[in-house]
Amino acid sequence: MKIVIAPDSFKGSLSAFEAASAINRGIKKALPSAETLVVPVADGGEGTMDSLVAATNGRKVDVTVTGPLLDKVQASYGILGDQQTCVIEMASASGLCLIHPQQRNPLLTTSYGTGELIKKALDDGCRKFILAIGGSATNDGGIGMLQALGVKLLDSNRKPVGYGGAELSQIVAIDMEEFDSRISTCDFIIASDVQNPLIGRNGASHIFGPQKGATPEMITFLDHHLSIWADLVEKTTGTRLHDKPGAGAAGGIGGAFQAFFPSITKRGIDIVIEYTELERKLTGAQCVFTGEGQIDAQTASGKTPMGVAQIAKKHGIPVFALAGSIGGGIERLYPYGITSVHSIVNSPISLEEAIEKANELLAATAEQVIRTYTATLNS
Amino acid sequence: MKIVIAPDSFKGSLSAFEAASAINRGIKKALPSAETLVVPVADGGEGTMDSLVAATNGRKVDVTVTGPLLDKVQASYGILGDQQTCVIEMASASGLCLIHPQQRNPLLTTSYGTGELIKKALDDGCRKFILAIGGSATNDGGIGMLQALGVKLLDSNRKPVGYGGAELSQIVAIDMEEFDSRISTCDFIIASDVQNPLIGRNGASHIFGPQKGATPEMITFLDHHLSIWADLVEKTTGTRLHDKPGAGAAGGIGGAFQAFFPSITKRGIDIVIEYTELERKLTGAQCVFTGEGQIDAQTASGKTPMGVAQIAKKHGIPVFALAGSIGGGIERLYPYGITSVHSIVNSPISLEEAIEKANELLAATAEQVIRTYTATLNS
Repeated sequence: MKIVIAPDSFKGSLSAFEAASAINRGIKKALPSAETLVVPVADGGEGTMDSLVAATNGRKVDVTVTGPLLDKVQASYGILGDQQTCVIEMASASGLCLIHPQQRNPLLTTSYGTGELIKKALDDGCRKFILAIGGSATNDGGIGMLQALGVKLLDSNRKPVGYGGAELSQIVAIDMEEFDSRISTCDFIIASDVQNPLIGRNGASHIFGPQKGATPEMITFLDHHLSIWADLVEKTTGTRLHDKPGAGAAGGIGGAFQAFFPSITKRGIDIVIEYTELERKLTGAQCVFTGEGQIDAQTASGKTPMGVAQIAKKHGIPVFALAGSIGGGIERLYPYGITSVHSIVNSPISLEEAIEKANELLAATAEQVIRTYTATLNS
Repeated sequence: MKIVIAPDSFKGSLSAFEAASAINRGIKKALPSAETLVVPVADGGEGTMDSLVAATNGRKVDVTVTGPLLDKVQASYGILGDQQTCVIEMASASGLCLIHPQQRNPLLTTSYGTGELIKKALDDGCRKFILAIGGSATNDGGIGMLQALGVKLLDSNRKPVGYGGAELSQIVAIDMEEFDSRISTCDFIIASDVQNPLIGRNGASHIFGPQKGATPEMITFLDHHLSIWADLVEKTTGTRLHDKPGAGAAGGIGGAFQAFFPSITKRGIDIVIEYTELERKLTGAQCVFTGEGQIDAQTASGKTPMGVAQIAKKHGIPVFALAGSIGGGIERLYPYGITSVHSIVNSPISLEEAIEKANELLAATAEQVIRTYTATLNS
């Protein structure tokens, strides 16, 4: 029996690879003869680079770049097995995870480091980019990234402005003269599930500002100056970002890619499924295991288990989803191809204990699920 | 698809019938066309009477009897559908559940009420008895029960002794003259999984005394006087209880049945399986659901899921066990026919929350398990 194991990470406890290994162990315990294929996946969020690098036998490159608060941080990008596609997680250079919650301040945080990662990969010969832009700490409209790649943003004295969202208010002109000319020869695939426009009530500042530390005053300030920035961008590039779906992703860096880069945007999970060749790997499989820390009705909005299930459903393969926590509304996942959802929690325990024991709990649950699925064969 | 649903109770939250109903609901949600057969079971403990009465379309009879501390308690016995078999749970009249933990005192507690229940059922025409003797509050060697049925236990002044374990020390003679003569025309089936002898290190007082409130001094006292009682019983009936397996069950009432009653002892779960006709009901079933609050390696020692599984295994039918809490060593259950064990807990929650939501959690888990089992049919 061929079984494909394609979970996301269990956030806070297991990486996608660790989760896949635990599931594999459980299945093998129940069914030693099973032919298992481990395909750790991600949905464009954390783990996306690891998933694609692992699936294509690529490699990781460590780079020191400018962090969101101008400190130096150790970031990395991946080069896929084709040796020319670069995978970057914006969070690696400009992520919320890099700063203390009390330091969150979108007036100060810059996407500069993300631009540096792109520059290093260009130097490395990459001409195709997959950019996962989730988890950013920034609301700077992507100006930091543009600055790192040679775009001059000038104030009323024709001097370059500084870094961070607050500097949006100083920009009066965009000088593209020294913008890295290699960019125009590249393909950028932006992994993003966000459809928000750049400005307004549903824009970057209002919707995502608060989680990045924006006060109501900052939101008003940032939204206003992103609007003026969008006017300038439109004048410079011809692309109108104000109401453009996706322009508000990752503090407006989504819009910067749309206006300044040869780019297309895809759902993160679809990119991962394409590059891990999950569909090809499903050939001949009798069932698929997927999973994520939390599974609920929200899983239907492009999360890993749902993406995996959609592919499996095309081929009539049942999908068993394992979760640390099952929320309400999982019946909404059935039409997408999720066969069933099982929690790894095996008794009333605390979140801490569940996280600590996640590896063994996941293996034990996979074992029981495959025993149930193959019950007729066993009895 | 025919599915048999045969769980025990989930102690503290669901009766066996409620558990079976919840599982049934979950299965029907996943598989509306399923032909389900609900058979709440028990293992000789709490719920045994309900299970047998329900399975045979019998009835319950409420009776006021003497409680373990001589107060009046509302107890009941069951009359099975054959109108002549009586099912008594000793705990109903003489149970630990009837007294406050602080009142536990095996010097005082008496099995008198259990004898009264037998007497009432004899008056009711019953001549066949199933006696589930788990959960007793007593360590009186069964003298209370014998007293209620006319046996005179005399002290050195030829006066009847009083009630409770302490009175064992007063008995010098057993007068069977007025022992209810109907007893000898009856069959008693004692439901007990306990193999302990009446006295000594593995006897009633040492092993079960502490949970009934016995201090070390009480244990020594009770063990000593049960030994003298056993000498008297041997002289009177010819049955030597001292080392007899099972004589130490339920504070020594097991021995009283062995010496004074036409009785045999069976494992509780086997009696329940026989009287619920579970094996016949399994005919044509494609799978069985069972369950209990806690499932672990101990389940193999005669608990409901294991008894159910043994019968199903004979017919090659897979058994899915659902539990509030899964403990270690469940792989030891597989040889008995348990296919898989699934916890109803769906996220890190407290015991209180698990108990409160047990009904919906159990239904939801049954739904997912049957979805997994029938995945190939559905996809």
